[in-house]
Amino acid sequence: MAPTRWGFVSAGRISNEFKIALDTLPQDEHQVVAVAARSLESAQKFAKTHDIPRAYGSYAELAAQDDIDAVYIGSIHTQHAPVTTMMLQAGKPVLCEKPMAVNSREARQMIGLAKEKGIFFMEGVWSRFFPVYLKAREIMDSGGIGDVKLVTACFGFPKGEEPRMKERSQAGGSLLDLGFYPIQFANFVFKGEEPEDVTVSGHLTNEEVDETVSIILKYSGNRMATLVCCMSSLLANEAYVYGTKGTLKIPSFWSPQELVAPDKTHKFPLPPPGKPINYFNATGFRFEAMEVRRCLQEGLKESPLMTHAMSLQIAGILDRARKVVGVVYDQDKE
Amino acid sequence: MAPTRWGFVSAGRISNEFKIALDTLPQDEHQVVAVAARSLESAQKFAKTHDIPRAYGSYAELAAQDDIDAVYIGSIHTQHAPVTTMMLQAGKPVLCEKPMAVNSREARQMIGLAKEKGIFFMEGVWSRFFPVYLKAREIMDSGGIGDVKLVTACFGFPKGEEPRMKERSQAGGSLLDLGFYPIQFANFVFKGEEPEDVTVSGHLTNEEVDETVSIILKYSGNRMATLVCCMSSLLANEAYVYGTKGTLKIPSFWSPQELVAPDKTHKFPLPPPGKPINYFNATGFRFEAMEVRRCLQEGLKESPLMTHAMSLQIAGILDRARKVVGVVYDQDKE
Repeated sequence: MAPTRWGFVSAGRISNEFKIALDTLPQDEHQVVAVAARSLESAQKFAKTHDIPRAYGSYAELAAQDDIDAVYIGSIHTQHAPVTTMMLQAGKPVLCEKPMAVNSREARQMIGLAKEKGIFFMEGVWSRFFPVYLKAREIMDSGGIGDVKLVTACFGFPKGEEPRMKERSQAGGSLLDLGFYPIQFANFVFKGEEPEDVTVSGHLTNEEVDETVSIILKYSGNRMATLVCCMSSLLANEAYVYGTKGTLKIPSFWSPQELVAPDKTHKFPLPPPGKPINYFNATGFRFEAMEVRRCLQEGLKESPLMTHAMSLQIAGILDRARKVVGVVYDQDKE
Repeated sequence: MAPTRWGFVSAGRISNEFKIALDTLPQDEHQVVAVAARSLESAQKFAKTHDIPRAYGSYAELAAQDDIDAVYIGSIHTQHAPVTTMMLQAGKPVLCEKPMAVNSREARQMIGLAKEKGIFFMEGVWSRFFPVYLKAREIMDSGGIGDVKLVTACFGFPKGEEPRMKERSQAGGSLLDLGFYPIQFANFVFKGEEPEDVTVSGHLTNEEVDETVSIILKYSGNRMATLVCCMSSLLANEAYVYGTKGTLKIPSFWSPQELVAPDKTHKFPLPPPGKPINYFNATGFRFEAMEVRRCLQEGLKESPLMTHAMSLQIAGILDRARKVVGVVYDQDKE
């Protein structure tokens, strides 16, 4: 099989991680052929660090290349909608970092375009493809914890002073960056089911973005999820799935190496990174990349593990939560 | 100093625990002089097991004794208000098991009566007096975790099939029995402060009592608590206090022996029970008993660690939560 030839949008921190994760996979399966940034200089610097053949100073140049099988979009999330649109218009399959959009409206448009064009598109919910998640699914589906009754997950880091977290003009706040993870976890456990009820409470920073938010989701059949995100404190960052017969605990559930199940603790160690990384367990991006390659090879337009409907469901909850806590972005006004 | 002479209301499981905990304290400080139950037979049986001099087949007989310094009320919670009222009317200081009442109205009446009579009254929130809580208070007050931003606590046991949990006529459901604990924990951390906002979601069993409930409390100064109780699954049953500079983790926070603080894990082992116990860490009731004795000796009418106002604040949240999930007891209709 031919290698999947990746083009990178953005030469920032997250692109760095994704590249280092790709480097843990066979080179005849994944290659990065080009990187584009808003400045040619930073694209060239990134290309040099990572031995990428071509560097561009605009995303449009990348979109024009005809030897790219998949575009990885690692830009700031306010750019996800316009850049994804550009790439889909150019016929490129897209893996777009989470959150795929600033709100549901953007998400619907992006997914609508992908469907219209018949092009593969996936939101980069990397957590979803870790072996821990696959094992958890297997245990839940086989009744290993009885009937699932409750999910709890919290995610918080003291990131409130980072400009992209702090500023409303950058669609800052804790929900889109951090809250996304517990929400996607509930979405994972309940297989994308739409909650019957979404209850939210939270508060804003002085800059009027959300600092701490709690979300209670009620699902059919008396099942619930209680989720928290916070950008002022480091939280325990664990997820639990409570069943009538047992519990699954996933430490570091956004990029886990371990699943504490009733029978035993299942361990799935990650490969070490070949270069310095910025984020915890970043080589775990490899699983998401493997899924993209699999989908492209099989001609799928979306991943069954992270469907368009799931992305829209998560975006909808984020919208509702932001509305309750009172955060309005410019994008929401359009 | 003379020993504190206790009279017990109820010869049930919780009275058993309280007696065994008293037995871990010096006998010249705590003595149980009488036990009353609804049946003389069970009072006598309890008295025999625990070497208690006198047994009565009615609570009124106990109320009439003049050698009792404090009454411990360990009956089912629907009986707390009438029995506490009887004992206060008879001039007896009262330690009443949690929840002190089925609703705020009852709680206000009970506390009103204690104040009117000028008699010591305390709700038996045993957790509050464990050394772990005192140490946590010390660390929080000295800034050891920076500014407190978020409390999380969950409490759940699969008790849904127990008649007293299951039946609405017995004021069953998870909130009063289990939810009380995370709520009292938030009340402890935030020193009885009234939340600015109480947000609740939950669902009912077929018998129309609350099975799982999540409560989000918003406090002044951008501080929050996210609490969960559940009677269908065993939860992690841990409490966290997240500050801007560190975290306190309290495993088994309803009766803890351990406090995980930023500097180290503080351990406060409990004395072993002298007889078989029903509940986890039950000898920890000793701390609550010590507090009652201290308050009586100092002539206090309420404990500064578990004030009447704190009891009313907790009862108010329980009322609001039950109302949202739609549980109405007969007592609420009066």
